[in-house]
Amino acid sequence: MTNNNYNKLTSINFEAFKNIVGEDFISSGKEQLEKYGQDETEDFIFLPEAVVKPQTVEQVSAIAKLCNENRIPLTTRGAGTGLSGAALPIMGGVLLSMEKFNKILKIDEANLQATVEPCVINYIFQEEVKKLGLFYPPDPASWGSCSLGGNVAHSSGGPKAVKYGTTRDYVLNLEIVLPNGEVIWTGANTLKYSTGYNLTHLMVGSEGTLGIITKIVFKLIPLPKHDLLMLVPFKSAEQACKAVGEVFRAGITPSAMEFMERDAIDWSIKYSGDVNFSIKPEWQALLLVEVDGNDVDVLMKDCERIGEVMQNNECDEILFADSAEQKNALWKIRRKVGEAVKSNSVYKEEDTVVPRAELPRLLKGVKEIGKKYGFKSVCYGHAGDGNLHVNIIKGDLSDSVWENDLPKGITEIFELCKALGGTISGEHGIGLVQKPYLPIVFSSYHLEVMRGIKKVFDPNSILNPGKIFD
Amino acid sequence: MTNNNYNKLTSINFEAFKNIVGEDFISSGKEQLEKYGQDETEDFIFLPEAVVKPQTVEQVSAIAKLCNENRIPLTTRGAGTGLSGAALPIMGGVLLSMEKFNKILKIDEANLQATVEPCVINYIFQEEVKKLGLFYPPDPASWGSCSLGGNVAHSSGGPKAVKYGTTRDYVLNLEIVLPNGEVIWTGANTLKYSTGYNLTHLMVGSEGTLGIITKIVFKLIPLPKHDLLMLVPFKSAEQACKAVGEVFRAGITPSAMEFMERDAIDWSIKYSGDVNFSIKPEWQALLLVEVDGNDVDVLMKDCERIGEVMQNNECDEILFADSAEQKNALWKIRRKVGEAVKSNSVYKEEDTVVPRAELPRLLKGVKEIGKKYGFKSVCYGHAGDGNLHVNIIKGDLSDSVWENDLPKGITEIFELCKALGGTISGEHGIGLVQKPYLPIVFSSYHLEVMRGIKKVFDPNSILNPGKIFD
Repeated sequence: MTNNNYNKLTSINFEAFKNIVGEDFISSGKEQLEKYGQDETEDFIFLPEAVVKPQTVEQVSAIAKLCNENRIPLTTRGAGTGLSGAALPIMGGVLLSMEKFNKILKIDEANLQATVEPCVINYIFQEEVKKLGLFYPPDPASWGSCSLGGNVAHSSGGPKAVKYGTTRDYVLNLEIVLPNGEVIWTGANTLKYSTGYNLTHLMVGSEGTLGIITKIVFKLIPLPKHDLLMLVPFKSAEQACKAVGEVFRAGITPSAMEFMERDAIDWSIKYSGDVNFSIKPEWQALLLVEVDGNDVDVLMKDCERIGEVMQNNECDEILFADSAEQKNALWKIRRKVGEAVKSNSVYKEEDTVVPRAELPRLLKGVKEIGKKYGFKSVCYGHAGDGNLHVNIIKGDLSDSVWENDLPKGITEIFELCKALGGTISGEHGIGLVQKPYLPIVFSSYHLEVMRGIKKVFDPNSILNPGKIFD
Repeated sequence: MTNNNYNKLTSINFEAFKNIVGEDFISSGKEQLEKYGQDETEDFIFLPEAVVKPQTVEQVSAIAKLCNENRIPLTTRGAGTGLSGAALPIMGGVLLSMEKFNKILKIDEANLQATVEPCVINYIFQEEVKKLGLFYPPDPASWGSCSLGGNVAHSSGGPKAVKYGTTRDYVLNLEIVLPNGEVIWTGANTLKYSTGYNLTHLMVGSEGTLGIITKIVFKLIPLPKHDLLMLVPFKSAEQACKAVGEVFRAGITPSAMEFMERDAIDWSIKYSGDVNFSIKPEWQALLLVEVDGNDVDVLMKDCERIGEVMQNNECDEILFADSAEQKNALWKIRRKVGEAVKSNSVYKEEDTVVPRAELPRLLKGVKEIGKKYGFKSVCYGHAGDGNLHVNIIKGDLSDSVWENDLPKGITEIFELCKALGGTISGEHGIGLVQKPYLPIVFSSYHLEVMRGIKKVFDPNSILNPGKIFD
């Protein structure tokens, strides 16, 4: 697919969009257009021909219809924190910024539900529901800046997913706009649903290629009253990964089970600057383990059991965070790894995921493949979910190796994921950067079915064209 | 859609099927064909022209291809316990009985996963994983006889869904056969998944209209060590419903929160015969409330809190089940309601679902609509999920009222569900019997999108034709 399938914007189009959104329209100014032409994926920039910032679902509907009738690419953008390039307007056309859809419309305490607009920031939403003793668990590392709509579009996870599930598990219903301007609610505001094909679940993770999300109804749960956090150092990264599986097998489901290998810790501490935490030279990996619930005694017992499992796996001395400050410091180290890597070198982030107990094999394989192709990787992630973020570092590699050999190495990593029962993205999505690798996990007929679904929703292929598949 | 869209089976077809499945083929004998022509939905019988019982995925693939090439309806059947008529071969053709796909292929203790064939019985699976300290929570009332594949096809629930979610929440990956004979795995064996359109979740609840499930990978969780069960009587059914919402708002998530109104209890006790339990005349409704977890003290505290909420809602004296026998007796009353109603009168079962706190309004509305149209209803169900089973009793109603007026009453009930933020099926599916009511909750464009999806998977519309929509 190339730009030839689409029409370029003209001054007639510009007027039509202005008639819909008034001043909330940008079609000039390189700096402004560049701002909307990038997300957090590597260093990509693709300039849109215009940016529109609607405020109402009626405006979104009119914009979609206009683009559909004129074969103009329409790429929806939330907060622009994506890591797979799903919000990049790679075909030009119109960038639909949802930034003005930033209101929490209703927190329904009686039903433990909330209705929000898609550009509410994850952390802001979490804090608002907390004030009412309620809990919205999905917490991507970027929670301070990512949007809930973007989370839905990617089925984002985060540390809490290991106990509480990903964004998918909290979406009850979606208001969406389709390319022809139709507005539908995908389901109902109910905990159970067996009423025809589940379009809600089909929309979750579809990365803006099937429809435009304009409202989200989320399930909420009661806020657990307490949590305990422990940091478990290991001399062997593989041993740490092995311990992860054994904790669950011991009957405990922690509310977080995060893995960081040595480099990830060092880089993050250095990047954060203000975290005062000393790492023994022999530590090769850390597990950050949280338990939560309403009864501190029970949590203490859980921690004891976890401690036993860890010691059976030859961990070093376990550190308990004994204040809110210590907890924050430890979480900061974990949350800042991504940014730290990004600030350090050109890199590529892979979002590998396998069944939990296969993690040691995945980690070992990643390192072996790295050796074979000459690249270094920094690995960390949601070990309890088998979700390992592999940050491949350019460092001293030549551009030629980076461009020609690296894809072979990535292919091998993804083939390994598949062989272990896993897949190529656990929470970041396919977007632009993983698109070439999709045939590793899907047959051509499987991809044909997905393309068929795309065509049902978006026959002219105007929504986020060139993403997931061509 | 009528039979005219399809070809009748001929002796040539018969031979072709026999070449695939050998002796596991039935094309004559009214009694045999009748057995495969009914499920648990009212008193419907639709005779298939032939029954095939494949044993391998290759056979299923060959059968699908043969039906597809010859435009022969192909209806998949699990254990035949459905309540919406989804397994009825209403267009004749081939009934694909999956009864020989009845093996638990693997229980993966390291990853807390299991791979099963679709015709494993729910209860058998539950018992097998329990032996390993593992838990598969979805537990439809028919768990002793329903199949896991049928559960997936309907996204079945059950009492535990209120804490643990429905079948959907435990399906990680599906092996499916498509009408052209292609076999694909829909996803990966991972807890997180963000790799293109989620075909796994699209298949769940699609009632055999998109593909044939041949293998299922389920997530398992650690088995909670203890549970406590309490029975809470109320003089007002609406007050009981109100108490339900307040328990959750108090920060407690019970592992079951079941509602039965007076008639449901009486009928079930009478039907069961051997349950020795005395009901005070003034009780109008019962709540069956279970909590589970690993610490009995915590559960006792939860029960105390629940008791306070119940008393604030004017319950009568709460009964604690203090032995396994008492627990079983109480659960038996609940589980047998459906059968009891069925044995008592011609009836229609509606599977209404609304946001939890709207339950009192739904119950009140159902009774008012009943008065208006002259029908009696027996209501019970998964109150914690807002999922109320409304059993409409024919009793003395004339056939003419039953056939002509009742659909108007059901329409009003479903319109009320929609107005309350709910929908027309929480866990039984649409199948045949709810099909006429689907336009109450979906716009014609919404239905068009669903039909479009159907066409992608099944362009000749051979899979379970005439179900969900025409």
